[in-house]
Amino acid sequence: MSRFPSSQSTSAMAEEPTKVGSAGGGDREGEDEQVVNPWEVTAKDGGKIDYDKLIEKFGCQRLDESFVRRVERLTGRPAHVFLRRGVFFAHRDFNEILDVYERGEKFFLYTGRGPSSEALHLGHLVPFMFTKYLQDAFKVPLVIQLTDDEKCMWKNLTVEESKRLARENAKDIIACGFDITRTFIFSDFSYVGGAFYENMVKVAKCVTFNKVVGIFGFTNEDHIGKISFPPVQDPYFRMTRDVAPRIGYQKPALIESSFFPALQGETGKMSASDPNSAIYVTDSSKDIKNKVNRYAFSGGQDSIENHRKYGANLEVDIPVKYLGFFLEDDAELDHIKKEYGAGRMLTGEIKKRLVEVLSELVERHRKARALVTDEVVDAFMAVRPLPLMFS
Amino acid sequence: MSRFPSSQSTSAMAEEPTKVGSAGGGDREGEDEQVVNPWEVTAKDGGKIDYDKLIEKFGCQRLDESFVRRVERLTGRPAHVFLRRGVFFAHRDFNEILDVYERGEKFFLYTGRGPSSEALHLGHLVPFMFTKYLQDAFKVPLVIQLTDDEKCMWKNLTVEESKRLARENAKDIIACGFDITRTFIFSDFSYVGGAFYENMVKVAKCVTFNKVVGIFGFTNEDHIGKISFPPVQDPYFRMTRDVAPRIGYQKPALIESSFFPALQGETGKMSASDPNSAIYVTDSSKDIKNKVNRYAFSGGQDSIENHRKYGANLEVDIPVKYLGFFLEDDAELDHIKKEYGAGRMLTGEIKKRLVEVLSELVERHRKARALVTDEVVDAFMAVRPLPLMFS
Repeated sequence: MSRFPSSQSTSAMAEEPTKVGSAGGGDREGEDEQVVNPWEVTAKDGGKIDYDKLIEKFGCQRLDESFVRRVERLTGRPAHVFLRRGVFFAHRDFNEILDVYERGEKFFLYTGRGPSSEALHLGHLVPFMFTKYLQDAFKVPLVIQLTDDEKCMWKNLTVEESKRLARENAKDIIACGFDITRTFIFSDFSYVGGAFYENMVKVAKCVTFNKVVGIFGFTNEDHIGKISFPPVQDPYFRMTRDVAPRIGYQKPALIESSFFPALQGETGKMSASDPNSAIYVTDSSKDIKNKVNRYAFSGGQDSIENHRKYGANLEVDIPVKYLGFFLEDDAELDHIKKEYGAGRMLTGEIKKRLVEVLSELVERHRKARALVTDEVVDAFMAVRPLPLMFS
Repeated sequence: MSRFPSSQSTSAMAEEPTKVGSAGGGDREGEDEQVVNPWEVTAKDGGKIDYDKLIEKFGCQRLDESFVRRVERLTGRPAHVFLRRGVFFAHRDFNEILDVYERGEKFFLYTGRGPSSEALHLGHLVPFMFTKYLQDAFKVPLVIQLTDDEKCMWKNLTVEESKRLARENAKDIIACGFDITRTFIFSDFSYVGGAFYENMVKVAKCVTFNKVVGIFGFTNEDHIGKISFPPVQDPYFRMTRDVAPRIGYQKPALIESSFFPALQGETGKMSASDPNSAIYVTDSSKDIKNKVNRYAFSGGQDSIENHRKYGANLEVDIPVKYLGFFLEDDAELDHIKKEYGAGRMLTGEIKKRLVEVLSELVERHRKARALVTDEVVDAFMAVRPLPLMFS
């Protein structure tokens, strides 16, 4: 099992090597002030990320209502919260994946993570929670790539530390509930070689230095590890979609999520350098309560009088946004938005409900992770046949 | 067994990870007209390569008479023809290797080949013939790297063709007589991964794009496969010697050979695009006779009268130069040079003797290669313990 199937012949997986991943698009600093690339997300003048502009700029397709209905019809189950509430807002060729599925043909899922931190925060969990839903709903194999080599190069970690973080992060990922009979997790340091390395070379041959400068904004002073890294990792999807057909493979289809906002407000991604900008899966209920109450940016008015009069600004309110990700009950969420927006509920009530929801989520994660021993990690990362991966 | 030992602890080999390789230096087109880099060798205005200038430019050490005597003393056997006749003319820190050997400590040899052609020519054999001598004389382990990935990228061969050529070339290399109990041969496509890939990443982190532009002359239009390749291959020795100490390894020592001249004259390397520029190990005795007689550039005079009067110009005479590589009898070589240089021997006689010497060499190689089955190649390329490698 390689990043790209090494032949079009043998395994069921190779028959239709179409992939679905989850990743943001890439962008360069330039004409406008909104910066979105694999390493940086900055909204214009401290405002919000303009997703319509991202869709237009990167030429993605909007993930609309009819698409959600089609997924529900095909899988025979309600769409995931992230899908029906627009957390995943854009895609490239995902319709073709649904065509493949409808014809009874095979596809598989791919996602990954660069293991640069000890513990994951809630934003890190979003793609994995969604990928678990996709795996369960479509009953398909999943490949998860841990780019320990990338983090070794970008974060200047040692090889050993990068490998250790990859295994620690694998435990959090496995705790999301992936099915071991359909899931293969690998780290680059442990798995580069063979057909994988052959594909890296094939991809590298198709991409000039000027091209990676254009896509990723590298400079002449960047080390050649960075410059040569894109062929190692599928999430460099714009490049992958360009190159794949030139070396005889199908383009991967993509599905793209919005950014999970920082507690302080929706002006960008959360920052590992500020632990108070995010809720971590290692936070205690007390930590969560403290962070939400102290740091979660509120759209409520500055006095109860004004709040009762004008209502909360839901567009900027972080507790409501977080509930939009993690409160599964649509009716309750609608109720909260209506009452809070009209000023009949106060920020304190919303935050209290959010603390409950997040504490339960994190507690469930903690219990699941405690069961993931080193042996379980080894089992998920073993190079092995997966006879049941499509059944 | 990796390019660089991955730890300084366990195997005998890792205790003194000093290496000896054979490769030309690197140079860039620039102020002078002599161009020597890993991909191009061009003398100034069709003249000869100026080796003194190379030594000065690249800061190598001249391989002098006292060095040759020291090798003979330490190994208790006469120096190889290539050593005593100056074919290997320069080195970097090889004296330190001899110090290591004298103290009874361990070192190993490394050399390699980029497998871009079906059959090797005599110039290709030179480093392997010399490496076999070194292995036998010092009784040390040897690692031979076949850079099939490099040729896939530079010559635009398919992965499959590059891998096939690597195995074919391995047969010619094995036919040079390497000791299977001390020799490990690998191809990049089959062996990149694990500790090897970890080292590639460690090296890549130390080298900027500007640096490889400076060393190798890459441009912004080169593909990122080329740009990122230097960390894969040890023969990029100038870079390796710069980086090794920065990541905790000893610098490899080097020994450098002069270029084996084309039949048409000593103005550069032989060209694969002109089969008449070189003697191949697949040439028949008839081919050899024909090529030597028709194409070998002669330093003899244009008439017998003039030749008897002025003698041959040995400085440009290819048959004499080839005999300098492959005629082992020092007395006979001296006799030929003296008589031919004085005009008492004619070009025809020299060429006849050269045809005999080369035919015997090629015939011996052909017989040895016929014994190298696929199973023998597999045995040399197997990842395996080498318990006798230092005994």
